[in-house]
Order: sequence, then C-alpha cells, then structure tokens
Amino acid sequence: MRGLMQDWPMLTHRIIDHAARVHGDREIVTRSVEGPIVRTNYRNLRARALRVAQRLDREGIKLGDRVATIAWNTARHMECWYGIMGIGAVCHTVNPRLFPEQIGWIINHAQDRIVITDLTFVPLLEKIADNLPSVERYIVLTDKAHMPQTTLKNAVAYEDWIAEVDGNFKWKEFDENTAAAMCYTSGTTGDPKGVLYSHRSNVLHSLIANNGDALGATSKDTMLPVVPLFHANSWGIVFSAPAMGTKLVMPGPKLDGESVYELLSTEKVTYTAGVPTVWLMLLQHMEKNKLTLPDLKVVICGGSAMPRSMIKAFVDMGIEVRHAWGMTEMSPLGTVGALQAPYAHLTGEDKLDVLQMQGYPPFMVEMKITDDAGKELPWDGKTFGRLKVKGPAISGAYYRVDTKILDEDGYFDTGDVATMNEHGYMRITDRSKDVIKSGGEWISSIDLENLAVGHPKVAEAAVIGVYHPKWDERPLLIVQLKEGESATREDILSYMDGKIAKWWMPDDVAFVKAIPHTATGKILKTSLRDQFKDYKLPSAAA
Amino acid sequence: MRGLMQDWPMLTHRIIDHAARVHGDREIVTRSVEGPIVRTNYRNLRARALRVAQRLDREGIKLGDRVATIAWNTARHMECWYGIMGIGAVCHTVNPRLFPEQIGWIINHAQDRIVITDLTFVPLLEKIADNLPSVERYIVLTDKAHMPQTTLKNAVAYEDWIAEVDGNFKWKEFDENTAAAMCYTSGTTGDPKGVLYSHRSNVLHSLIANNGDALGATSKDTMLPVVPLFHANSWGIVFSAPAMGTKLVMPGPKLDGESVYELLSTEKVTYTAGVPTVWLMLLQHMEKNKLTLPDLKVVICGGSAMPRSMIKAFVDMGIEVRHAWGMTEMSPLGTVGALQAPYAHLTGEDKLDVLQMQGYPPFMVEMKITDDAGKELPWDGKTFGRLKVKGPAISGAYYRVDTKILDEDGYFDTGDVATMNEHGYMRITDRSKDVIKSGGEWISSIDLENLAVGHPKVAEAAVIGVYHPKWDERPLLIVQLKEGESATREDILSYMDGKIAKWWMPDDVAFVKAIPHTATGKILKTSLRDQFKDYKLPSAAA
Repeated sequence: MRGLMQDWPMLTHRIIDHAARVHGDREIVTRSVEGPIVRTNYRNLRARALRVAQRLDREGIKLGDRVATIAWNTARHMECWYGIMGIGAVCHTVNPRLFPEQIGWIINHAQDRIVITDLTFVPLLEKIADNLPSVERYIVLTDKAHMPQTTLKNAVAYEDWIAEVDGNFKWKEFDENTAAAMCYTSGTTGDPKGVLYSHRSNVLHSLIANNGDALGATSKDTMLPVVPLFHANSWGIVFSAPAMGTKLVMPGPKLDGESVYELLSTEKVTYTAGVPTVWLMLLQHMEKNKLTLPDLKVVICGGSAMPRSMIKAFVDMGIEVRHAWGMTEMSPLGTVGALQAPYAHLTGEDKLDVLQMQGYPPFMVEMKITDDAGKELPWDGKTFGRLKVKGPAISGAYYRVDTKILDEDGYFDTGDVATMNEHGYMRITDRSKDVIKSGGEWISSIDLENLAVGHPKVAEAAVIGVYHPKWDERPLLIVQLKEGESATREDILSYMDGKIAKWWMPDDVAFVKAIPHTATGKILKTSLRDQFKDYKLPSAAA
Repeated sequence: MRGLMQDWPMLTHRIIDHAARVHGDREIVTRSVEGPIVRTNYRNLRARALRVAQRLDREGIKLGDRVATIAWNTARHMECWYGIMGIGAVCHTVNPRLFPEQIGWIINHAQDRIVITDLTFVPLLEKIADNLPSVERYIVLTDKAHMPQTTLKNAVAYEDWIAEVDGNFKWKEFDENTAAAMCYTSGTTGDPKGVLYSHRSNVLHSLIANNGDALGATSKDTMLPVVPLFHANSWGIVFSAPAMGTKLVMPGPKLDGESVYELLSTEKVTYTAGVPTVWLMLLQHMEKNKLTLPDLKVVICGGSAMPRSMIKAFVDMGIEVRHAWGMTEMSPLGTVGALQAPYAHLTGEDKLDVLQMQGYPPFMVEMKITDDAGKELPWDGKTFGRLKVKGPAISGAYYRVDTKILDEDGYFDTGDVATMNEHGYMRITDRSKDVIKSGGEWISSIDLENLAVGHPKVAEAAVIGVYHPKWDERPLLIVQLKEGESATREDILSYMDGKIAKWWMPDDVAFVKAIPHTATGKILKTSLRDQFKDYKLPSAAA
C-alpha cells in the first residue's frame, strides 16, 4: 500500500524558489572578479537564474546536456548553477587548478556544449580551445565594459547574454533522479572520474548539511564558503544556505589571509568552511596583525586533516571547530566533528583529541569498516579497516565508466582506511593503497610518518610497504632531513621506540635529498614505491 | 539523463538503525504507565523494535496491514512504531480522547488487525471490542506482573509477546512511497479522515524538523515531547530525535504541570514541545512554587495559538519560544516561528509581536494565500486569504475517500485563513468556514472575538456571519457576560469602536447565557449558526 502524501519531486530550483519567497531580502555579498564588493539578494539571484535558464533554453540546451563552469565563488556563478539545473541540464564544475591537459580531457569526456568562465580563466581556455570540439560557445562572467578581446568561439559577456531574454520563464519539470551536476575527481592514478549528482541527491544533501550538528547554519547566520564551488559540489553550501535563508559571502578569486579576514570581519560572518591551507593563512594574518573575529562562531574544516595546533588556535579564540571529512563522491559530506553529548563536557587536550578525529556520520550516511575480505570490523576506536559508505547522496557509478563500484551490500569503498569509535567518530589512518600489510595485520603509514616528523632533525617523512619474504610487507621509513642536519638510522628508530607497538617499528630507514610531491602538495608515494621497488630490507636478508 | 547516485530508499527503520549505531548509548527516559521512571537507549530500543517486527511477522501481519496503537508517550510505544513500520505494516495511532464511538468508527474504517494498547485504555476498548470485527488480537503494553484480567480477544502482555521471538530478524525492504503510518483527523464536521504517511514523507519530515530554525535539537540536546504520539505523528519527534541522536524524555500518562516540571528539571531537558494548555499548567505550577528551569532552551508550541502573556512568561525566563503551526495532513510541521535575521535584534513588545505570529515555512513547505476564486494574494502582512500548502510531507488524498483534495496546482487547502508577511511569517486570522464575507471582503471572526473579550465585563465572545441583503454577510457578536455583570449592546460596541476598521464593526450584539463548546474546548460555531440562522440584523431591516 502506498502512502497518500503529495508527489513533490526534490528539484534544486525549489530551493532557490523557497529562498526568494521566504528569505528574499537576504544578501549574497561577493568580492567580484573585477574587484569591487557587490551585493545582491536571493530574490534577485533567482530572477537572474531564471534568465540564465531561459537563455540556455534559447541556446538549444536540452535536458541532460552538459554546461561547464570554470569560475570562482560569486553570485553570478551561483545563479548559473540554478539556471543550468533549472532546465534539467547538467552543471559541470571544472577545477581551474588542474593541468590544462586534464581540463581539456575532462571537458571532452563530459562533452560540454557551453563553457561559462570567469575573466581569470580566459587565457587558459584560449590555449586549449582548439581541442574542445564539443564546446559551441563561451560565456564570460562579466559585463561589456570588462569584456576582453578573445579568440574563444562565440564568446559573449554574461551580462549581455542574459539581457537578451526577459526572465519571464518557468523552470522545467522532470524526475528528481535527473542528473543535476557533475564534478570530476582527479585521483592520483588513472583518468579523472565523473561524479554525477542528481537533483534528489543535491536536495537531500542540503537537508543533511542543515542539521545543527553538520554545517548547521540558520536564517540568522552568515556563511562564507572559502571552499570553491568547483570543489566537490561546494560542500553543498550553494544549496544548504538558500534552503535555510543563510546570508552568503562569496570570496571571489582572493583566498589569501588578508582578503578572507576582511570579508569575515566586515560582513560579520558567523560560519565559514574551507581547507586547512586557507585557515593557516588566515591565522597567520590574524596573529601578525593582532586581529580578532568576535562574530565568527563555527569554522568547518575539510579536504585534509587539520593540524592540532590549528584546532587549538580557533578553540582558544572561542570559535567552534568542526572537522569534516568527505569526498566528491559523497556530495561531499561524510562525517562532521560536532561534539556529541558524551564529549560535550571535555576541555583542554581531551577536547582536542576528539576534535582531531574526523567526526561522525549524520543520518543518511551509513558507514562500515571491513578487512580485505569484506568482513565488518568492530567500532572500538582502535581496529582499522577499509572505510565503506552508503547513502542517497553517495555515488553508485561514475559517468561513462562501466566498472561496478559498489560491494554486494551496496557500499562504496572510499579508498581510505579508518577507525570508528563507539560513538561513531571516525579517524582516517591511511589510504588503503598506502597501508602496510604485515602478516595479515595493517600498519598505518600516516601514523608512522606523523611520529617520525616529530624528531627534531626530520623535515619530512614517508612510509611505504616493501616486500618481505615472511610478512609480505614491512614498513620502510623514508626521511628527508632538515637542511644541514645529519642523523643515523638508529637515531631515528630509537626516537620512535616505545611510542608505538613493537611490530609497527619500521624495518629500515632510507635517507633521501627530497621527498617528491603531487601538484596539490601531497607526498607522491607512487614515485617512492617505484624508486624503492627493489629495496632489500635488512630483516629480509637475515 | 539520470544522476548516478546510489538508490537508497528513505525508510523509517534506517533512522533507528542510525541512532543505534552512532548514538547507541543515548537515553530514552520514560515515566511508565505502571509508575516508575524507566530508562533505555537507542541501541536497546532498536533491538526491541526488531522483536516487535519479528513477532508481528510471525502473527501474519503483511505489507500494508494496519496495526493500531492507543498509548501514551513511552519508549515501548516508540519501539512499536519502528517495529510496525519496519515490516511495511501501517502504524495507526488512535487518539484515546475521542468519543468511544469515534474510536470504533476509526478502527473499523482502518480495518486494524491488531490493537496495541496501554493499560489505561483496556476498559475503554473492552466496551467497544464487540463492534471491532477486524481486530484479531490485543497487545497490552505491560509485563506479566501488571497484566489485568480482560475480555479483550487473545489479549497478551507485550513483554510476554515479544519474548516469544529472539530478535534475530532483518527489516523488510520496500519502496519509500510505501505507507508507514496513519492518523485520523477529527474535523468538526463529517466523518474522521485518514491521513496516510509514507516512509518517504516521515523521513523527509524528520530532516525538515532538524534544521536549526524548525525544532532544531542536536545530539547534545534533550527533548521532552509533551505532544502525544497519537497527535499528528508526534510532530515528527519520534523520527527527528533519533535521526539526530537527541536524548528523549517521555512523559507517559502524566501531563500535569507538576509531573512535566519534574521531568524537565531532573532530566535537564533543553527542548520541549506541546500545546498551550500544557504550558499554562506548567507555568502556573512554576509560579506557585517559585521554580525555575535553567536548562530549558526552547519551547515549541503548537496546536492552537499561544496567548501573548504565555509567550512573555517564557521570554522573561530567557527561554526561546517557537510558535508552530501545522496539521495532521502536514506531518505536521507547516510553519515555525524562529526569529529570522530581520527580527533577531527585536526586544520587548516588538519581539512579542513577531513571536505571536505562527512563524514561516521551512524549505519543503510551499505556501500561498488565495481568494475564493483561487487567485494568489500578496504577502503584505495585511491581506488575508485561504491558506494553501504543497510539499512532500503533505497529504494528497485521504484514505478510502475518493474526493480530490488538491487544487489544479497541487496545493492542499488548509481550511485556515491567514496573512503572510514579506518575510514569509504567517498569521492565522480565521478558519475559512468562520470568516465573515462582507461584500466580497473578508472579516476575521477571531480578531473581533479577541477584541471583544478585552472588555472587562465579557467572559467569552463569538462572532458569526449573519445574512445581509446588501453585503451577503455581516458580523454578529455573541457575548457571554461574566457572572453577575450587565452590559448593553452600545457598551460593547463603543469599547470596540476605533480599535478596528469601521466596516469590521459588528452589526449587532447578542447576549447569551453560555457559549457552546466542543469536547476539546473550542467554540462550537455550527451550533451558534444554527441558533442564529434566522437572526435579523437591525442594519438589514433598515
């Protein structure tokens, strides 16, 4: 028997309709790419998004067609999202920080028909445009006065383009499972993979984000998403903020400490979200200039692990820190580290211990940790296993990739290795391709690296698994010493001894001039594994 | 093109699975029907709900079968909800405060196969059981020691009943649009009408409720729902609290001021929800005994309008009051009165003015006001019209009733007349059957009544529309004076003069000994209309 409730498809444009109607005067403040701070509100943003939809419709863009954006966080970019999705086209956010060849590969794989770009990226696109046959037209997010000379095909200034229609237009209606947006993940190996969000997943994700223990901003709050709209669905903030009527502050192209501080301060921002690098720049700027942020209540930090000292710096200012973990494939929220009741009373180092974990999953994110055979492991805060996730805003497949990506129970393997504790708090201990498998037991390369860099002479450390005839793999510690320092294998190992289980101790230490990194600053372990693939451990020889 | 996110049906048992896994130790504290305060947690509640599911399955209850509950707010009642819904049966909450014949009519209309009841209602059911042919068995929510002698068919103590299975059971899987729960509305006219919630609507409603501006409790909070589980889906709290990991305090059968105060105080409750009558009893008890509630942060009040003095009493204690409005047909949240940014700075009487409105709709509740012809009216805070609503947790039809209940745009007519202001705040001004239609313009009977009872000699006032040859209808004010007082038509009208628009002034005043009421204390306007159906207004004669 079916329930008798209304059939109300969850479509993203219903969010901006709600915001325009109930929170129409609430502002979206943008540091524009052209320079000045500009202000609009949800009522006007919706009206302009409708023009985008109408103009795309006139351009011949149909249900399911892909429209790319390569742009900073601005109100214009946001209205493009709603306009594109509102006719059932797919809003494909492209990350401008990728290598130009990757950007080209992605646009070609997605077969984008239109590219909407900020002024910043016109030169970049001009270089690759000859190899983008699917693209029919480029829209530059500016007005006539700022429009550059460009070789881009059919290029037009955005303001001129949307001025060609009157805005008297209705959103299209379609099934809630229709594709709404697309974002490619650039893994460290293989081709980028396209994640294809649906209207349903984006709307549900906004509801998840708006519970008080996730992002949790309200209609009284002001949110500054430093996280770019081209990163993992903007962490959902483009949807969650208007759903609540939260005022938005968009930082545009300037993400340095001074510029972010200026907006946080002048706009009295209460919630902000971004990666640790951004907070490091902010904290340095604040410390140097002895500044405070009395209005800021909550900092959400994801993308990579937040150093303990950074958490402490915010906590000491009376600002709540929520460590978040997620993936492009998860829309992206996976866990958020608000303090649950059992931890609410904690202070000092005990509190930092909890805040340093990645948080716990909200309702609608189901998690398990398993061994290599898929057997579930206990949530005891110690045992670590492959982290697998399930939910309505989590990928079930990649765009134009046939490989099955879910296990038999429908879980997606995150590629991370993690512990879960009795309250559902998750701690990432490794990437599953980096964890060292010693005689069937797992050793966290990250934990060993964190320990080794504590040695006063070590600049950076990497741990990889190396072949061992008895244990399959044993850890090799690779060390880059600080400039001008010297140390022996025994110096390093004796420093580590007693701080970890005996069987976790690296079997050897190799010293290198420089540890290699990816473009985004992560240790390039594939290169190290290649370099040390024939390495003979002393323990193996014995 | 479809998005590529996981297929994850929204089923209510996923909520209790989440709570058991991530918030397993969080308590549910109950004032039991037998007397003592008893404690359990989400982990145990889920385990027992699984036994209920398994036991119902063994009883032969199938997908779509109806199982009734007639019970107070207790953990046992809550685990029955999850157990019943978890096999795809329909949890039919029956309101024990209805007349016995109505209860019988409802159970027969729903064709309930099993009735689960508290000890309190065994005598009531014994009286009507002979006329309930669909009911095969009665389960009494108690243990062997407290099980009464009863004539109820196949009666069994709940604890014995669930002890017959081992709990090793899996929830059934089915479509998210499957019926989950049922609640009859007892209108003032006609037969009760069955609202049939789906798993989808209940899950979505829990997400709506958990945004910070709706109910908004978190995993650090403790919620006491005074609102009974048999009233309008428990305002969704049975779903929203475990979805967040909020501790629950269940008041059982004792809803008097002293008992509610005791639980609020000893369990350090931070959020509570109920009707004005309950808060009146609580406030009187607190005032009389000079008591405080330092932990209580938010009082949610719905069911009927909250008097200004009551709002002020809570505000003066530093407690946030959220006026809510909804309907059984809306799962039930329609509007909640958290203060949006434009009102956040208000104090004193200005703040009370805003808090006295019914609040604004959260995302996923769409509203409009229209005239009788269905034309939309402006949101100016003054114009009032029929309030119509749309959303995924709002009724599209009644159970076993063929009448179409949505307009051509898919909106449900609430039967209320309301204004909406520029920030989406709604104020109920009347029931649409009570509003007085004078020459095409509407006059609020409620506003006139509220004004008239301000006269020092008036005990109660009712306003109805009476036939007028020129204006179709004009207001007649019916007054019951305070014991021993006397007043004339002119006394009353001159008191009202100047406080309302001239054309709103009642055309006449009729004095009665007693104004008639319904069983639930509302003015019985049908009876007054009957009594005054041939009333000749002096203005009509002129």
